Amino acid sequence: MDFELRILGSSSATPSANRHHTAQLLTIDNQFHLIDCGEGTQMQLMLYKIKHQRISNIYISHLHGDHYFGLAGLLSTMHLQGRQQPLHLFGPPGLSEILSLQLKYSGTNLTFKLIFHELDTTIYRKIYEDKKITVHTLPMEHRVPCCGFLFREKPKPRPLIKENLPGFLTPPQLVRLKWGEDIRDEHGNVLVRNSVVTLEPKRSRSYAYCADSRYKPDLLPYLKGVDLLYHEATFLDDMRERAHYTFHSTARQAAEMAAAAQVRHLLLGHFSVRYKDLTPLLEEAKEVFAKSDLATEGSIFCVQE
Amino acid sequence: MDFELRILGSSSATPSANRHHTAQLLTIDNQFHLIDCGEGTQMQLMLYKIKHQRISNIYISHLHGDHYFGLAGLLSTMHLQGRQQPLHLFGPPGLSEILSLQLKYSGTNLTFKLIFHELDTTIYRKIYEDKKITVHTLPMEHRVPCCGFLFREKPKPRPLIKENLPGFLTPPQLVRLKWGEDIRDEHGNVLVRNSVVTLEPKRSRSYAYCADSRYKPDLLPYLKGVDLLYHEATFLDDMRERAHYTFHSTARQAAEMAAAAQVRHLLLGHFSVRYKDLTPLLEEAKEVFAKSDLATEGSIFCVQE
Repeated sequence: MDFELRILGSSSATPSANRHHTAQLLTIDNQFHLIDCGEGTQMQLMLYKIKHQRISNIYISHLHGDHYFGLAGLLSTMHLQGRQQPLHLFGPPGLSEILSLQLKYSGTNLTFKLIFHELDTTIYRKIYEDKKITVHTLPMEHRVPCCGFLFREKPKPRPLIKENLPGFLTPPQLVRLKWGEDIRDEHGNVLVRNSVVTLEPKRSRSYAYCADSRYKPDLLPYLKGVDLLYHEATFLDDMRERAHYTFHSTARQAAEMAAAAQVRHLLLGHFSVRYKDLTPLLEEAKEVFAKSDLATEGSIFCVQE
Repeated sequence: MDFELRILGSSSATPSANRHHTAQLLTIDNQFHLIDCGEGTQMQLMLYKIKHQRISNIYISHLHGDHYFGLAGLLSTMHLQGRQQPLHLFGPPGLSEILSLQLKYSGTNLTFKLIFHELDTTIYRKIYEDKKITVHTLPMEHRVPCCGFLFREKPKPRPLIKENLPGFLTPPQLVRLKWGEDIRDEHGNVLVRNSVVTLEPKRSRSYAYCADSRYKPDLLPYLKGVDLLYHEATFLDDMRERAHYTFHSTARQAAEMAAAAQVRHLLLGHFSVRYKDLTPLLEEAKEVFAKSDLATEGSIFCVQE
């Protein structure tokens, strides 16, 4: 089952010649989740030959333009191409009002159902769940209401060791074994010990997207042990004061979060346009957390089961 | 004095891999006029190394996204880069409301004065004037309120033939000669005949931007003899019915307008994404009006004095 992150944009507030505004596509088990949608996202999707009609969920972290000015255009293109399947849109208060106004003045009656989920960006809360995953908000500390998103696979069933299975087990008993139970008789005595007939389940993978924010260590409990952590790194650490003042983070701070949360892999993004060469940002992070990478346009990060 | 049109985008409703949404930069005597501002316009300006801070006027024809979804991002970048000089924005009802909402939710207090001029898209009316030019609206026939824009240089002074000038002329008399008057004595007798001491003035150049519209021959009086006519040509003429139904035009219709208005040069744009190769559109127009061109990304069209 795939668990893959594709970076569509890595630039902060203003774009540069080769860096686009924030957007990421997370694919989990063939389901497309679009995270933020800066201006030009639909063109980036086209560039990487990603079919936008396959996106089922869009998550907008906050209402600074570099995170959502591509949304109306993407929805418009979906509409013009006759999309039928519903689209779930998660975003802060105000987003629905803006889109409604844009649709009104363009005389557009969408061909598909747009299901808007207004977010409380101040708390950690489950906002989406299906058979395979959950998505929670992660409260950020920014100049406007802003949240990140934590994607987690649900626990997976334990594979059965067929050759060790006694013949008398019923289908419901097999299901219980898959979910870790022992099989007991009516007196409570163990008939089949789970550890004898099952293997460890595959790992439940996770991705934490930390959008624009000041350094915010109270996020650590939510980030503990995630496979992939994206953390904004607008500045180098010599601009730590400016980062604090503008409600952003430095590459070192991103790495400190990764180290403290013991994540597996850190991705840096949302780079200030002042950095033509991003190597110093990466090097700064790696001093603190070795498994760091730049989340630049076109990069793909896969998490193995 | 320059009079130059740069094409930033040529695609209709949905963008394609190599065609962007509508935007054009008209430079007249070093003044930058941006006409429409589809998604990605700020990146296109960057690509062509055009300094967006030099734009003084922005004109939005209508509120379909492919004509204005890049505006909020461009204004945001102007703001983030500390623009100080005022910006004149001309657009239909609703544009100001949408931008105000976007600015409100992003917590942005622009660093510059944005002077919004709400347009009546249903009439031909002067909306801008300075020492050198006038700009008028051109009423279009589209699914939502929509207008084009007619840019005209004002009449230019007649150059003086210095060697023919008598020595007794005062500065005010010289000015009157430049504007075509004869100089007379108190009895009305001609002292200096204008035609003897002045040359024909340089031409006053003009550009008519016909935005999204059905074929609309009642525009002809306004377009008569313009130097440069941009006319949308969404479809080939075999889709004339669809063009009518969707309030668009065909390449042949654009050329018929150019021929009837006796313009000097026709530019075709706003091409449907169905046309990978634009040659048939150009050929169709040229059958009716030889001096036709495709207004594709990066093209520059200069009008000589």
